[in-house]
Parts: sequence; structure tokens; C-alpha cells
Amino acid sequence: MQAPWVTFRPELKVLDCTIRDGGLINDHQFDNDLVKAVYETCIEAGLDYMEIGYRNSERLFPKKKFGPFRHSDEEDIRRVTGDHDEEATGLKLAVMVDAGKSDWKTDILPRDQSVVDMVRVACYVDQIPEAVEMIHDAHEKGYETSCNLMAISIVQHAEIDQALQSIAATPVDVLVVVDSFGSLYREQIDILVGKYLDTVQGTDKQVGLHAHNNQQLAFANTIEAIILGANRVDATMAGLGRGAGNCPMELLIGFLRNPKFKRRAVWKLLQDRFVALRQTLEWGPLVPYIITGQHNRHPRAAMELLAGPDRDNYVEFFDRIVGDV
Amino acid sequence: MQAPWVTFRPELKVLDCTIRDGGLINDHQFDNDLVKAVYETCIEAGLDYMEIGYRNSERLFPKKKFGPFRHSDEEDIRRVTGDHDEEATGLKLAVMVDAGKSDWKTDILPRDQSVVDMVRVACYVDQIPEAVEMIHDAHEKGYETSCNLMAISIVQHAEIDQALQSIAATPVDVLVVVDSFGSLYREQIDILVGKYLDTVQGTDKQVGLHAHNNQQLAFANTIEAIILGANRVDATMAGLGRGAGNCPMELLIGFLRNPKFKRRAVWKLLQDRFVALRQTLEWGPLVPYIITGQHNRHPRAAMELLAGPDRDNYVEFFDRIVGDV
Repeated sequence: MQAPWVTFRPELKVLDCTIRDGGLINDHQFDNDLVKAVYETCIEAGLDYMEIGYRNSERLFPKKKFGPFRHSDEEDIRRVTGDHDEEATGLKLAVMVDAGKSDWKTDILPRDQSVVDMVRVACYVDQIPEAVEMIHDAHEKGYETSCNLMAISIVQHAEIDQALQSIAATPVDVLVVVDSFGSLYREQIDILVGKYLDTVQGTDKQVGLHAHNNQQLAFANTIEAIILGANRVDATMAGLGRGAGNCPMELLIGFLRNPKFKRRAVWKLLQDRFVALRQTLEWGPLVPYIITGQHNRHPRAAMELLAGPDRDNYVEFFDRIVGDV
Repeated sequence: MQAPWVTFRPELKVLDCTIRDGGLINDHQFDNDLVKAVYETCIEAGLDYMEIGYRNSERLFPKKKFGPFRHSDEEDIRRVTGDHDEEATGLKLAVMVDAGKSDWKTDILPRDQSVVDMVRVACYVDQIPEAVEMIHDAHEKGYETSCNLMAISIVQHAEIDQALQSIAATPVDVLVVVDSFGSLYREQIDILVGKYLDTVQGTDKQVGLHAHNNQQLAFANTIEAIILGANRVDATMAGLGRGAGNCPMELLIGFLRNPKFKRRAVWKLLQDRFVALRQTLEWGPLVPYIITGQHNRHPRAAMELLAGPDRDNYVEFFDRIVGDV
């Protein structure tokens, strides 16, 4: 056997979504200087993309309740990035736009009026028609685009196939396999990433992976997707993200051998910011998240449990989830 | 693609080494009722083996400093297990014996005088001659045996090959792939587990895996070894074990589909005992353990760092480890 991991694929790109996914824990109520520290770390660490937040509807997510990166208004992004210079920094900026939760027709500006380079369209399988419209819209406005079809672990494969056909027929650049519930094992990643790769074969489109860490498999499944040929992978600093969190950036770029990736910058961020952040926010593969992951459920019930007085009552929670079908 | 994970291999056996490996954090100073709770959980959860401790030398590990399960005297085991009935419980008991650190000629009793079923011989590659003697001795005294060749991630493959030939020539029952530093990626697991499987091909010997969780890969690498054909796997409750800990039992038996494995018993143990234990002992894939794992180093330096005032100074630690070659 050869040792291909000693080398690297220049076409493999890493996206940081620390603030975007992490904001699902705290309604995006981050201090601006934390967001700035993450942005600067992305640059120093040589990452390819930073997804700085959602661009979701102010009507549905009132600014009184939600912090700036639920909407990622241009001026809020610029408060962090200035007139972000993609060429000088090597970093592209992305926002995520949810089908059904965003006013994308008006809120996504033409690219020459925006500091953003990429629009990632997130949708559930029953929102494919809107997602297709959103991809066309963002593409026509000049953006790179991805489609992040969520919660596929509870979708029949016949539906996934049809959804992929619809998405592949758009000018979308990236199709992302999303393990929303952190329930997928390596063998299932093989099937799904294989399916997405088959869909884009012979095109310039790329396949990505966005993993959740309920079963401590986010990093391993990301490695697996890379081995299979996925060239777009998501990770977050210290794994910060909803519930169990995501693939930890510090693990991912320790594995990748592209010399442009610098771990030291990430250690510095974790030391300077995340030791303190851990005192105020909770994420990671805690028992209730393991249980929802093992049973292929949304982490919502686990988040509720952990916020209440019964947070350590694992057995009752297990019984409830198992009896819940 | 088929979905083989829906079924199970009856010949796949799970070993709990919570107390044995976890005792490396606290010199085996566990309350007897915690050990008893783990023992009872192993039975209720349907596990195959419990490695209750080391049987190491009282001369080298004085009883004043080390708790009972560094030596696992017969009377100390019986204080937990009584006259353990293997047939009624379905659970076999194991002890680990270190080459160079045990008085195995005298301390391993003939099996009919012992409550132990299996002796696991742990050694480094430069201790193979003693390990071979130890395996013969334990086998002749009537025990099942394994050889756990440690720290193989820093051993040349030519040496591993020779060691495996020496071990395979003994009556040993199991050869365990041991990722002592938690440094191995899936592709390296493929090579090593493949090598061990080749060694035992055509015999009744089995291959096992003992993983450490520095890079959050202990569970994933255990799945990988199982897919490749390893039929003996180690795990610990809540992943308790030296440094970053081991493959968490609650994840492993959530993956395995053998109906005899019962997760509920493990949730109960974690709830009743491990929430409190977390207040007094620290383990898991903390940053310093990630760093030693990524650089294929013993976790010793990380353990020292975490015990001191600079525990959050990741950058300096990284610089020290990287400059340390």
C-alpha cells in the first residue's frame, strides 16, 4: 500500500463555519472581536473560505433577539473584514442562506456590491424547488454557490437521487453532503459521498462534506469523504457548532499535508479565546447528543435536556428517545 | 452496496478496560464500589471481557502509592466479583501483565486457583523475548492470552513484522493492534490491522484493536478495524483512559448490532457514577493530547502540562513538541 496521505491535493479546499454554525447555540450573540479573531485566524491558518454567518430574514429573526451574523449585513461583515481583499488574504467569504427563512431576492446583493464571494444555499428535501431558484439567483448575481441539502439521514435515497438531479441541473458549484444529526457511520458516508460524486462526474462541480460530531465521527467521516474524492470540507475552530459541534479545524488541518495550512494560528485562537468561550457556551459530543445521533434524531431534544435541571438523567432521556418512534 | 452493519458477527467480542486503562490517570486509586459498578455494568451490558486491572509488581508499584488494581490480587478481584461465574454472567475476567514490570512467574497463579480467565501481555518491541516467555507461561497455567504490542506507531515495520512472527509462533490467542499515542489515521490502521490479520491467517488466532482518542479517532478506527476483520475490540466507559482516553463503550455498542449488547446499562453507569467522576478526574481529547497525538508522541508531556499552571498555553506547548524531534 502506498501512503497517499503524505502528499496533498491542491484542489482540496477547507471552509471554516465556526461563527455560522456556532451561532446556532447562542442566536449569533458573539462579540465582534471574537468574530474578528476567527477571521484573522482563518487568514493566518491559510484556510480557503470563511462562512461568516447566515443571511437570513430580519422579519423571521428579529435583530432584537439575534446577533449580527444571523443576517450578515454587508456593513456588519465589513466591521470585521474591512474591504476584504481575497487575493491578498487567500480567503474567500461565504454566507449561508436558508430556503424558507430568507429574503434572498432582495438581501443578496449583486456581487460587485458585496464583500461576499460565495452563497451557500441550505435546504431540506421538500424545499428543492426554492433552493433551485436561489442557486440560479445567486449565480446570476455573480456568486460561487453551493447547495447544502440537510438532514439527508432521514430522507429516502430515491428522494435524494431526485433532489441531486434537480440541483446538478443548476449552475451550482458545490454539492455538500450534510450529516445534520451526526448519525452517519463510515459505510453510510461511503454510499452518500459516492452518490454525490456520481452526480457531478464529468462536470466541474465539486462535492463537500459538513459533519456533526454526535458520535465523535465528524473528523473521521471528513477524512473518509476526502479519501473518496470530496474536495470541499467544512470544519470549525474547536469544533464549535450546534449541539455536538462539527469537525474540529485543529484536527483537520493536522491531517492535511498542504503546507499552506498552519495549525499554530488555530492553537493561538483556542488559547486566547476558546478557553474563555468554553465557560459561557457548551458544545461537544455530550451524552444526550450521542443518544440523538445514535437514533438519527434532530439534536433539539438533547439541547432542551441540557438546558434544564435533568441534564444528567441519561437513562430517562434514552428511554424517551427510544420510545419516541 | 450492501448494508452489512445492519447484521452482526457473533464472533466479535468486546473487552472493557475502564479500570485498567483509567487507573493510569490516578494510580488505580478507585473506590471499590466504582469498580463494582463497572463490573456490574459489564454484565448487564452483555460485554464479553472485563480487564479489571494490571497484575504488576508490588516491588515496582508499592501498595502505599498504588491502588489495588495495579496488582489485581485475587482477593481484591474477589472483593468486587465474588466467585465470579463466567457461565452465568457471560463475562470473562482479564488482567494485563507488563513485560519488565511484573513478577509473572509467581504472581500469575494456575488458572484453577484464579478468578481470572485471560492474561493480556503488554510489551514494547524490545521486550518481545520476555513477552514470548510470558505468553507461554500464562498459556501453560491454563489462561487465554493476548499480546498487546505497544507504541507501534514509533516502530519500523520491519521490526513489527519480526515481532509478529515471534508472537504468532506462541500459543497466544489474540494479537492486539495498540495505538498507544492516538496518532494513527484510518489508512495506517488499514496497513497495521491488515498486517496482523495476515500474520494470523489460517490459524484460530484473532486480531484486536486498542485505540486512544487523541485525535477523536478511537471509535472510528475501531469501526475500521472491525470492517477489516478484527474480532476483538477494547473500549471503556465514557472513554475513560490515560490521557485522551479510549474508544467510548457507549459509542461502540451503539454501533454493534448484536442484540446482547445493552446500552441502557452504560447510560445508567455514566449517570450514576461518571458525572461525579468527571469532577475529580480529567481525560479526553484535550488540546495538549491532540498535539502529542498529531506528532506521534507519548502523552506524558501533555499530562504534565495539564497538571501545571500553564495548562492552557497551547502555542508554547506546540512549539516545544514540534521543536522536540
